[in-house]
Amino acid sequence: MVSEPAHNSWSRLHFNHREDLLPIHSNNVLAQGRSSYAEDRAAIEDLQARYLFALDFHDPDLYVSTFTEDGVLDYGSGEVKGRQAIKEIIARMPNPKPVAGKRAGAARHNISNIVIKVEGNRATGRSYWFHYSNDNPERRGVFDGFGHYEDELVKVNGSWLFTKRKIYNEGRDEWAYKDSKNPAW
Amino acid sequence: MVSEPAHNSWSRLHFNHREDLLPIHSNNVLAQGRSSYAEDRAAIEDLQARYLFALDFHDPDLYVSTFTEDGVLDYGSGEVKGRQAIKEIIARMPNPKPVAGKRAGAARHNISNIVIKVEGNRATGRSYWFHYSNDNPERRGVFDGFGHYEDELVKVNGSWLFTKRKIYNEGRDEWAYKDSKNPAW
Amino acid sequence: MVSEPAHNSWSRLHFNHREDLLPIHSNNVLAQGRSSYAEDRAAIEDLQARYLFALDFHDPDLYVSTFTEDGVLDYGSGEVKGRQAIKEIIARMPNPKPVAGKRAGAARHNISNIVIKVEGNRATGRSYWFHYSNDNPERRGVFDGFGHYEDELVKVNGSWLFTKRKIYNEGRDEWAYKDSKNPAW
Repeated sequence: MVSEPAHNSWSRLHFNHREDLLPIHSNNVLAQGRSSYAEDRAAIEDLQARYLFALDFHDPDLYVSTFTEDGVLDYGSGEVKGRQAIKEIIARMPNPKPVAGKRAGAARHNISNIVIKVEGNRATGRSYWFHYSNDNPERRGVFDGFGHYEDELVKVNGSWLFTKRKIYNEGRDEWAYKDSKNPAW
Repeated sequence: MVSEPAHNSWSRLHFNHREDLLPIHSNNVLAQGRSSYAEDRAAIEDLQARYLFALDFHDPDLYVSTFTEDGVLDYGSGEVKGRQAIKEIIARMPNPKPVAGKRAGAARHNISNIVIKVEGNRATGRSYWFHYSNDNPERRGVFDGFGHYEDELVKVNGSWLFTKRKIYNEGRDEWAYKDSKNPAW
Repeated sequence: MVSEPAHNSWSRLHFNHREDLLPIHSNNVLAQGRSSYAEDRAAIEDLQARYLFALDFHDPDLYVSTFTEDGVLDYGSGEVKGRQAIKEIIARMPNPKPVAGKRAGAARHNISNIVIKVEGNRATGRSYWFHYSNDNPERRGVFDGFGHYEDELVKVNGSWLFTKRKIYNEGRDEWAYKDSKNPAW
């Protein structure tokens, strides 16, 4: 059982004065004194899933809480840096409304094929995402897009957070992955 | 390493005399004396996946074994309570048959974006589901529906089981999620 | 905490003289002295995801490194045995190219509903796969196929590898699952 120091030099440098901004989880592995690949991966998978619920159910505060305060989101049009800037982007995303007596349509992002490498309090992730929605008159579910994520994460006070999420989207030329190299390992 | 008592007062109250009904797993974390977020999450993910194999491959006995004896399934038309009642519902679900020399079509439910919170022997889950099938003359795979799960689970004798699975289905007005709130956290 | 011998008799028999062929992972659970259902499942999930990145991003060397040296791949047309033979199959798979000034299309395999049973250094897996692509003039994402995996795995020097992956594909008569039995448990 490897025990993690509560504050390593990196986290002390970057986070010491803003612990009140960090989300509190019941699954804080640090508090339980545990760290292992399975524990780190489990916490990161949960983070990745909570991120998507927050995105699809229009919860920008929770969405940005999955990033560090100075975290970076890049969905293809350059880096958006910091929780406040990210929140403004997410809060402006269209939120389907009921139309002509019809219930609002739903649109959902999904993650799969999660690859995670952990090195101490740092982790690197690669995974696929895909999207479906039912924004049509029949509210029929339709698959409509996909891409992949390239993530960098840090464990702060026992909770994993994104320091950077880079999103590739195969639906648009300018957002598609152009490299011929396997982004994972 | 937190050790779990073999029988806490809750499980003694509800399960003591029906241990023969509980599924036996080689991955019984209690028997191994282990409990942690990763161990609980791994066991719950396995349960959620076995549930879907049982559903899609028409195995109602295995399907109901993922619930506690008095577990509740609610797929949108009210609560179905107890293994026997749930089994009757599941056993009546249509099972594609070969037609005119053509092999039977296949229909599959998938889970993704799994969020799990564990509190002792209780857990709460949120996740997405989506569905595809090939019930058309060409046996062409077609995406055709989605929704999300809201789960309550309990660990009984070291095995996680559903006490309640509430299913939201965005394909029908009466089964769709109507709240504007993020169902996860 | 169960400690695993560095070389059990099985791995000594089969792998002793080819350790240089085995992939090195930072998440080597053996080196960390850990083994549990969650640790094994986490490592296997990572393997399954890395396999798919290697497949879709045309990385045949990495792809075959997810199998043991004498591992077996069966995608429906009989067993392909050994890394070299598997690599030749995978390397011949079509790799979309840019056409008429249009970027190359993308095609992606995904895994879901992962069921894993671990028995010592052996594991058995069942899971779903599905596929989507955008190989159409508009580069529109389209769901186009599905099936399931039946896996056998072994832990060698702390790293899980496929000894056999059998792929069922519901898109073709000869590759579809014909049994009426639930392939999981």
